[in-house]
Amino acid sequence: QRLGMVEAIWGEHKSAEQIARILEELHRAGELALVTRVSPEKAEAVAALLGRERGEAWLLQHHPQARCLSAGLLPSPESRLGRVAVLSGGTSDLPVAAEAQLALACHGIATELVLDVGVAGLHRLLERLEDLRHADVLIACAGMEGALPTVLAGLLPQPVIGVPVAVGYGVSAGGVAALHGMLASCAPGLTVVNIDNGYGAAMAALRILGCGPGRSAAWTQGS
Amino acid sequence: QRLGMVEAIWGEHKSAEQIARILEELHRAGELALVTRVSPEKAEAVAALLGRERGEAWLLQHHPQARCLSAGLLPSPESRLGRVAVLSGGTSDLPVAAEAQLALACHGIATELVLDVGVAGLHRLLERLEDLRHADVLIACAGMEGALPTVLAGLLPQPVIGVPVAVGYGVSAGGVAALHGMLASCAPGLTVVNIDNGYGAAMAALRILGCGPGRSAAWTQGS
Amino acid sequence: QRLGMVEAIWGEHKSAEQIARILEELHRAGELALVTRVSPEKAEAVAALLGRERGEAWLLQHHPQARCLSAGLLPSPESRLGRVAVLSGGTSDLPVAAEAQLALACHGIATELVLDVGVAGLHRLLERLEDLRHADVLIACAGMEGALPTVLAGLLPQPVIGVPVAVGYGVSAGGVAALHGMLASCAPGLTVVNIDNGYGAAMAALRILGCGPGRSAAWTQGS
Amino acid sequence: QRLGMVEAIWGEHKSAEQIARILEELHRAGELALVTRVSPEKAEAVAALLGRERGEAWLLQHHPQARCLSAGLLPSPESRLGRVAVLSGGTSDLPVAAEAQLALACHGIATELVLDVGVAGLHRLLERLEDLRHADVLIACAGMEGALPTVLAGLLPQPVIGVPVAVGYGVSAGGVAALHGMLASCAPGLTVVNIDNGYGAAMAALRILGCGPGRSAAWTQGS
Amino acid sequence: QRLGMVEAIWGEHKSAEQIARILEELHRAGELALVTRVSPEKAEAVAALLGRERGEAWLLQHHPQARCLSAGLLPSPESRLGRVAVLSGGTSDLPVAAEAQLALACHGIATELVLDVGVAGLHRLLERLEDLRHADVLIACAGMEGALPTVLAGLLPQPVIGVPVAVGYGVSAGGVAALHGMLASCAPGLTVVNIDNGYGAAMAALRILGCGPGRSAAWTQGS
Amino acid sequence: QRLGMVEAIWGEHKSAEQIARILEELHRAGELALVTRVSPEKAEAVAALLGRERGEAWLLQHHPQARCLSAGLLPSPESRLGRVAVLSGGTSDLPVAAEAQLALACHGIATELVLDVGVAGLHRLLERLEDLRHADVLIACAGMEGALPTVLAGLLPQPVIGVPVAVGYGVSAGGVAALHGMLASCAPGLTVVNIDNGYGAAMAALRILGCGPGRSAAWTQGS
Amino acid sequence: QRLGMVEAIWGEHKSAEQIARILEELHRAGELALVTRVSPEKAEAVAALLGRERGEAWLLQHHPQARCLSAGLLPSPESRLGRVAVLSGGTSDLPVAAEAQLALACHGIATELVLDVGVAGLHRLLERLEDLRHADVLIACAGMEGALPTVLAGLLPQPVIGVPVAVGYGVSAGGVAALHGMLASCAPGLTVVNIDNGYGAAMAALRILGCGPGRSAAWTQGS
Amino acid sequence: QRLGMVEAIWGEHKSAEQIARILEELHRAGELALVTRVSPEKAEAVAALLGRERGEAWLLQHHPQARCLSAGLLPSPESRLGRVAVLSGGTSDLPVAAEAQLALACHGIATELVLDVGVAGLHRLLERLEDLRHADVLIACAGMEGALPTVLAGLLPQPVIGVPVAVGYGVSAGGVAALHGMLASCAPGLTVVNIDNGYGAAMAALRILGCGPGRSAAWTQGS
Ligand SMILES: Nc1ncnc2c1ncn2[C@@H]1O[C@H](COP(=O)(O)O)[C@@H](O)[C@H]1O
Ligand SMILES: Nc1ncnc2c1ncn2[C@@H]1O[C@H](COP(=O)(O)O)[C@@H](O)[C@H]1O
Ligand SMILES: Nc1ncnc2c1ncn2[C@@H]1O[C@H](COP(=O)(O)O)[C@@H](O)[C@H]1O
Ligand SMILES: Nc1ncnc2c1ncn2[C@@H]1O[C@H](COP(=O)(O)O)[C@@H](O)[C@H]1O
Ligand SMILES: [Mg+2]
Ligand SMILES: [Mg+2]
Ligand SMILES: [Mg+2]
Ligand SMILES: [Mg+2]
Ligand SMILES: [Mg+2]
Ligand SMILES: [Mg+2]
Ligand SMILES: [Mg+2]
Ligand SMILES: [Mg+2]
Repeated sequence: QRLGMVEAIWGEHKSAEQIARILEELHRAGELALVTRVSPEKAEAVAALLGRERGEAWLLQHHPQARCLSAGLLPSPESRLGRVAVLSGGTSDLPVAAEAQLALACHGIATELVLDVGVAGLHRLLERLEDLRHADVLIACAGMEGALPTVLAGLLPQPVIGVPVAVGYGVSAGGVAALHGMLASCAPGLTVVNIDNGYGAAMAALRILGCGPGRSAAWTQGS
Repeated sequence: QRLGMVEAIWGEHKSAEQIARILEELHRAGELALVTRVSPEKAEAVAALLGRERGEAWLLQHHPQARCLSAGLLPSPESRLGRVAVLSGGTSDLPVAAEAQLALACHGIATELVLDVGVAGLHRLLERLEDLRHADVLIACAGMEGALPTVLAGLLPQPVIGVPVAVGYGVSAGGVAALHGMLASCAPGLTVVNIDNGYGAAMAALRILGCGPGRSAAWTQGS
Repeated sequence: QRLGMVEAIWGEHKSAEQIARILEELHRAGELALVTRVSPEKAEAVAALLGRERGEAWLLQHHPQARCLSAGLLPSPESRLGRVAVLSGGTSDLPVAAEAQLALACHGIATELVLDVGVAGLHRLLERLEDLRHADVLIACAGMEGALPTVLAGLLPQPVIGVPVAVGYGVSAGGVAALHGMLASCAPGLTVVNIDNGYGAAMAALRILGCGPGRSAAWTQGS
Repeated sequence: QRLGMVEAIWGEHKSAEQIARILEELHRAGELALVTRVSPEKAEAVAALLGRERGEAWLLQHHPQARCLSAGLLPSPESRLGRVAVLSGGTSDLPVAAEAQLALACHGIATELVLDVGVAGLHRLLERLEDLRHADVLIACAGMEGALPTVLAGLLPQPVIGVPVAVGYGVSAGGVAALHGMLASCAPGLTVVNIDNGYGAAMAALRILGCGPGRSAAWTQGS
Repeated sequence: QRLGMVEAIWGEHKSAEQIARILEELHRAGELALVTRVSPEKAEAVAALLGRERGEAWLLQHHPQARCLSAGLLPSPESRLGRVAVLSGGTSDLPVAAEAQLALACHGIATELVLDVGVAGLHRLLERLEDLRHADVLIACAGMEGALPTVLAGLLPQPVIGVPVAVGYGVSAGGVAALHGMLASCAPGLTVVNIDNGYGAAMAALRILGCGPGRSAAWTQGS
Repeated sequence: QRLGMVEAIWGEHKSAEQIARILEELHRAGELALVTRVSPEKAEAVAALLGRERGEAWLLQHHPQARCLSAGLLPSPESRLGRVAVLSGGTSDLPVAAEAQLALACHGIATELVLDVGVAGLHRLLERLEDLRHADVLIACAGMEGALPTVLAGLLPQPVIGVPVAVGYGVSAGGVAALHGMLASCAPGLTVVNIDNGYGAAMAALRILGCGPGRSAAWTQGS
Repeated sequence: QRLGMVEAIWGEHKSAEQIARILEELHRAGELALVTRVSPEKAEAVAALLGRERGEAWLLQHHPQARCLSAGLLPSPESRLGRVAVLSGGTSDLPVAAEAQLALACHGIATELVLDVGVAGLHRLLERLEDLRHADVLIACAGMEGALPTVLAGLLPQPVIGVPVAVGYGVSAGGVAALHGMLASCAPGLTVVNIDNGYGAAMAALRILGCGPGRSAAWTQGS
Repeated sequence: QRLGMVEAIWGEHKSAEQIARILEELHRAGELALVTRVSPEKAEAVAALLGRERGEAWLLQHHPQARCLSAGLLPSPESRLGRVAVLSGGTSDLPVAAEAQLALACHGIATELVLDVGVAGLHRLLERLEDLRHADVLIACAGMEGALPTVLAGLLPQPVIGVPVAVGYGVSAGGVAALHGMLASCAPGLTVVNIDNGYGAAMAALRILGCGPGRSAAWTQGS
């Protein structure tokens, strides 16, 4: 918690036993916990290991879209802390966008999801532009050629965090084409996180929302 | 000429002596010749080897922007054969765009150059959209993240040929990020040629302009 | 439909639920729909979700060779709109070739399949050359070293679209060797789409068939 | 200026003639201009093309460490707009750090340079930690294995922007090892820009400093 | 045994039949055997092939954490032969750390496991520093960006062997980012083995412990 | 000479001093020597170091096309030892083809050069097919997509050795596209050497010509 | 059969139905057939499709070690046609070695298998050296670092064909490290085929055995 | 000096001015200094900047083979501290081997150079085997396929440090083939440093020589 962030556990390479043990420790310490990259089967196994009742008492919850497990009470969102818009090019990017939204929700940050605004159908993005002006930070998730954050950062002045998504095939399989497209972007001031790293984008947004004099005040009150 | 294309020589790895020898052969055969990737120094050396007078007689001409050498009379453009628009994101893409224009000019095809329409400044592209509707084929040259042909192919129904340009640094150095961005494009029906291959894009446009019943007629008259 | 193309949904990373929901929307809008990269199991699940009767009413159809799902009445092919030849090096490239054929069929374009004309057995390709002269556009699918479109574009003057196929092992696994072979081709004017992108090649052919004065007329009548 | 950013020209692939022409246009429009990636020789050539007097009148200035050219009056730094710390692992990263500092200086943002804090000599970084708490944004430039931003983001809660530097040899030549190290970082919320992109990191910091309610007020007064 | 090392068999691409046959040969020769990369299922199959009794007589043992099979009496650890510390950044690196520990145990070398000392939480590593001064060799296993061995080698003077771990996703999937981070390290004298090669790191430590005049004496007595 | 091959020195990374010293040693031992990858400048420097007279006495000779230096009497070619055809796609491949020819000439093997038979102009290759039937071994040098050896091996039954050439740009720069095209070839029994390795292809041909009962006899007489 | 080679079908991406259909055609034409990359399950399915009796009549046979299916009478080996030694570094390379042996057996060529001669245990290779002198061609299969063919080609004068094997993990996973090691070899005249391409190595050996005057005679009698 | 190592400065990306300034600081602190990757021209410029006399007083010395600059008195080698053998495959690897030797000499460690023992001429290595038994640590430098350390580690029980060398062309250009060959090695306990990192290999040897009880005593006396 040194950094004021909720404890997050990367679940992908951990067994249900290892996850259950970590959750018990965090529960004893009275901390909210977020486990990412958890399949429905593994979530089920963790719940079984902890026992039905304990799971309920701990508010253990599986978020299938975000592929996450949370344990503890999620704070209610406070718009005073800032607004984050999470955009995505298509339905296939949803799990990554949902991971970012949940990670922010764990810190009481409200998010808005703006779906299906891929650059091959530019009008859909342009229609949403006015709404987006009200966001403090923009998180843009995109697979394939990953051009969405580039176009966005050319249209709006806020911080834009690009999240390449491992959706695609051929040269875009694995998300490297999207990653390189975002890093190579001709739009000034776009920053990028690892492929599929919705959680990391959320934490970067959190760092931004908490930064600077005006903000700090709001944040000090807020937490 | 089997394919009805002007003889093109790839000059990059050839010595001035080798180029001069090939030009002599083509001149004897009465053919127009286009040598690509020729530096001013090499062009000078070829001209010196051929001799001033002969060079003039052959209409030997260096095109510094396109980095090409032509020998023979370029046909005057006939709009009846079709119109090609060549677009580029920035000044740095000019040599590639110019190579495409010259290669088409060698076949009597008129082209229009649409500069500085990179996707980070979308309004500049949107302003030119109506003009672009009149082109038969669109050739879009772009470096860095290479998103221009994607956005273009989402806005217009014509054939779009993407030419990745080896302009950039870090992950975009060498043009592979742009190439992959174009191949991975979420816009349907965009095709791509090798990095910096302005000549290839021109020949693809030529094949397209010559195709189909209506077209064939025009072409038969034309050549 | 902005581009006059049938709505295509990339099914690979979508759940049966997501696909069913999208098909319902398109059906309500009275549109023909094409879903690509759908396994027999997923196709079955979508059909079950929609209900047998509704599925029938919508003319829901799974095309196992092409790995696609279509919903709605496929137009009957009109040769007036142009002829496309789809070539492939071997049996293993069939799914990609079939995807291209089906995508064109959705737009009323007739195609001819020319199988087993790999360059290691050149005589089989040479035997078919005369037939191929009658096609307006050539789509050449090839895995391994991907030399087929190069040889083809050296022999014929029409537009040639190369589709690298992810068939092979060792250095050709994943299709990148074929992709690079096509991009690096010494044949002038060959264009390329992403690995396995039969759909994209079809849409590129469609853009070509619809281009130019003569063509436009035919097309305006046609649609 | 749509985004409130000083016009920046990427000088690397542009000729002195092209740069001089763009500077003239911007001068006529009364705008401050920043040209990046300009060698001393090219800077000299641009100055010669513009003419000594005009150059002086325009406040044309070459910044050799940052490899940039500026034309126009740089605003005096206003600490009210926020403080940015620029860190670097070693002397070899200086050009990139200096580009970031200059790009921020063009927008009136004060920066502090914290040199030689590579992670192989951790005590040097730990000694500076208290100072760094006062910065609003941290830009960390690092070559070789690029671990500096990771360690930093584990110690401090502010936004951290990692800039991989193309310094190294063998597997670290070109900066990809540093880039991947930063993207793969186990520290939450670190964001990354392209290799050597000091300018981009500065613009990302600018977006962050301008974001949020408290900040906006300060910024509105400021500009 | 030419090199004084226990016979190790790499089990990953071998069938249970092939492993059983090799174990029989080694047993006949009276040798201790270590089979690496053996899944629980394959271990079970080998045991079944050998027969329950024989398995017991041979002291056949599956080590699930280390994914290994041993046959024969493991020597008791002799601290006189040297002490090796095995460090890891997180729970996910455990299988690789355990393989290294087991391979050293087969040679009578005592090891200490130091878990969860990733560089994003530097204080945990700094707390363990004094203990680590007593180790003769340090083996540091790390995935993602792989910065642990770099930081370690900057703090301590002993031999440090970095083992990149194939834990991560996006650019760190497969362990190459960690490998390159270790090779590119700015800490002097860090050496590296292949990704996931806990066994190789152990054998390198063994070579080191056995080297030099003082050591040789201890070792000669020891074996 | 253990293998019956003329001593070859790879000159690329060696200084003129190092080459001169090695040539002196070989001359003292009475051996013919071949130094590859020697620029005209380095050849000149070696000759100067050895002294004009000595150079002449040693029959020191620079072969600019092949970029090689030979010292000693080249044997006269004996067709009895076998015939090798060296093919190349274009003028740009000549240096590599010439290196192969010279290396074979050093062993008394006669070669025939078949130029400009690239697969984009198939008829030129087909015209030469009958001649090629008389060769014992075929060495095919090709850059860009490297399809020549594939087509060749599909047409003729002899051993075919593919030499990828580092001629091209974009995806074919450096020769990897050609290398992968040859390795991925669908023609059975094609073998490959490193990019630009004309010398290696020659030595492979030599091994082949010397192999088998019939051959051995001829060779025993021959040497 | 244009090349005098048995018809080989690459089975990996073909369905049992497609394989059965091709075998029927070849059977009707009275030809021996070899299908490579066939799993036991697929082999079973093909046999079932053809029917037990027909399968027997056709001498349909699955070779599990070589992962192949043959249909027709394998000729008895004739040593007069030449001897091929197939070497491998370890048990894990067996499937590739076996594929090479079977493909040669289909052409009546006798092979000898020399197992477990990896370069980390050099004495085992040196012990077999005298035997190997009697082979006409050497096929060396090796995974991991792939050094076996290099050491071999340094010790023996015959043609050596290296087959990289996709055995390994980390940097050697997939066989590219072995492939590059063989191509980069400092041993003169080593040639290479694609990763795991035992069949290709066999066909290259066949081309070699059939080449040259002495050999041709033997072969003409032989077939 | 925290680690007891002589201060080393990586000179490649530093200007002569920067190097001179660092040397002045170290001289004031009374420390021996080693600057690596310094060309003759840069060495000359540094000497000029410091002034002839001061340079002499400081014992400033350029080591052209090792491409290094040292300032201060090199200690005389003490064999009591251990013996290191530095091996290399060919003349082209000398600069890397010399860097390793010089870096050890700076710490009073005696080294022996064993040249021209590449694995394609195995007998030369085998002849030196007995000598090598007396070394405490083996540093093996190799370019191309990099098999030398593998063969060495299979023959001798000491610590072996592989240094891949960026010597080669085609797939071995840049040294990655050698690096991967060493990491993928089938010889147990081989460790590796970055390409061309002679300095790093020396520091790893130093860590090893200083490790363990017997050694520590010798070292405590020694320093
Ligand atoms: N800039 C270029 N890029 C790609 N291909 C080219 C270029 N210039 C010429 N070519 C092609 O290269 C062929 C000539 O190659 P060469 O025989 O080496 O001169 C021509 O037939 C053209 O198809
Ligand atoms: N060093 C730099 N790195 C990345 N982007 C830059 C750099 N310098 C300028 N730019 C961006 O490139 C754009 C100008 O590109 P251009 O039109 O080619 O000069 C500017 O709007 C900046 O966003
Ligand atoms: N152009 C070349 N390409 C590949 N290998 C070569 C070449 N020239 C010489 N060699 C090989 O390199 C060895 C000599 O390497 P070196 O000792 O470094 O001169 C010779 O025995 C040849 O096998
Ligand atoms: N040739 C070299 N290769 C790798 N690391 C080096 C080399 N020379 C110096 N170093 C390391 O780089 C550090 C100095 O980097 P710098 O501060 O940039 O001079 C030293 O502490 C050494 O650990
Ligand atoms: Mg969509
Ligand atoms: Mg621009
Ligand atoms: Mg076939
Ligand atoms: Mg430093
Ligand atoms: Mg952890
Ligand atoms: Mg040609
Ligand atoms: Mg073995
Ligand atoms: Mg040598």
